[in-house]
Amino acid sequence: MIGRLNHVAIAVPDLEAASAMYRDTLGAAVGAPQDEPDHGVTVVFIELPNTKIELLYPLGEGSPIKGFLDKNPSGGIHHVCYEVEDILAARDHLKAQGARVLGSGEPKIGAHGKPVLFLHPKDFQGTLVELEQV
Amino acid sequence: MIGRLNHVAIAVPDLEAASAMYRDTLGAAVGAPQDEPDHGVTVVFIELPNTKIELLYPLGEGSPIKGFLDKNPSGGIHHVCYEVEDILAARDHLKAQGARVLGSGEPKIGAHGKPVLFLHPKDFQGTLVELEQV
Repeated sequence: MIGRLNHVAIAVPDLEAASAMYRDTLGAAVGAPQDEPDHGVTVVFIELPNTKIELLYPLGEGSPIKGFLDKNPSGGIHHVCYEVEDILAARDHLKAQGARVLGSGEPKIGAHGKPVLFLHPKDFQGTLVELEQV
Repeated sequence: MIGRLNHVAIAVPDLEAASAMYRDTLGAAVGAPQDEPDHGVTVVFIELPNTKIELLYPLGEGSPIKGFLDKNPSGGIHHVCYEVEDILAARDHLKAQGARVLGSGEPKIGAHGKPVLFLHPKDFQGTLVELEQV
C-alpha cells in the first residue's frame, strides 16, 4: 500500500540556524522559508536526490508542533510521510486493521496541496505517520 | 555534500509486531530479521521505492538503542542516514564547520558493510545523523 517516502519532517527551534546547518555544513539544497498559516508552521524544504527533508518551525498561536518543541527544545524528528495512491482506500484499510486516524478521520489538504492524513503514533511504534495521496 | 537519504531508522520494542504492522497494515515489503551482533541490534529492512526504513531492536547487553527505548518505551524514530561519496572528506568538512563526530571520529563498518559515522544530535536540531559512504 505505502509507496515512496515523501519526506522526513524535523521540528527545529531556530529555522535560520537549521537552514544554515543543512546548507553550509551538510551541503544540501535548501529552499526559502514558506509560511503555511493553515497548518501553523513555517516550512523549509531540503531537496535530496531521492526524497525531501522538511524543517518545521511554529507559526502563530496553537501551532501543532509547539508541544513537540516544548518537550524537545533542541528539536527532533517529528514525522515521516509515506505516499499512497488512494487516501480513502488507505484510510479504510488502516481502520479495518485497527489503526487510529487522527482528527476527524477525513483527509485535509496538506502543505503540498494534496490530501493528507495522520496516524496515531501509538499504533506505529511511537512514530507519527503522515499519508499523502499523490 | 550529502546525497540520498539512505534510510530512516526506527527503534521498536517488539520487532515481530512492528514487522507485522508495516507488512499487513501499511502493506510494505518487509524483510526477515538480521542479527548484527557487532552493532548490538537486530534489524528488519523495509524496502520502499525510493529508500529504506530500518526497524532496530536491541541485541545483547549494552545495545546502543537500549537507552533510547528506556526513554521511549513505545519506540520512535532513532536516526536518519545520508549517503556521502567520501566519508573522510565529509568528516573533515564537518569538523571544520564545528560539528561533532561521535565516538573515536574514525569511520566504522556499518550494518550494510560500508563505512559509517554518527554526528552529535545537538549539532543537528536534535537529530542523530548517520553518514554512510556509498
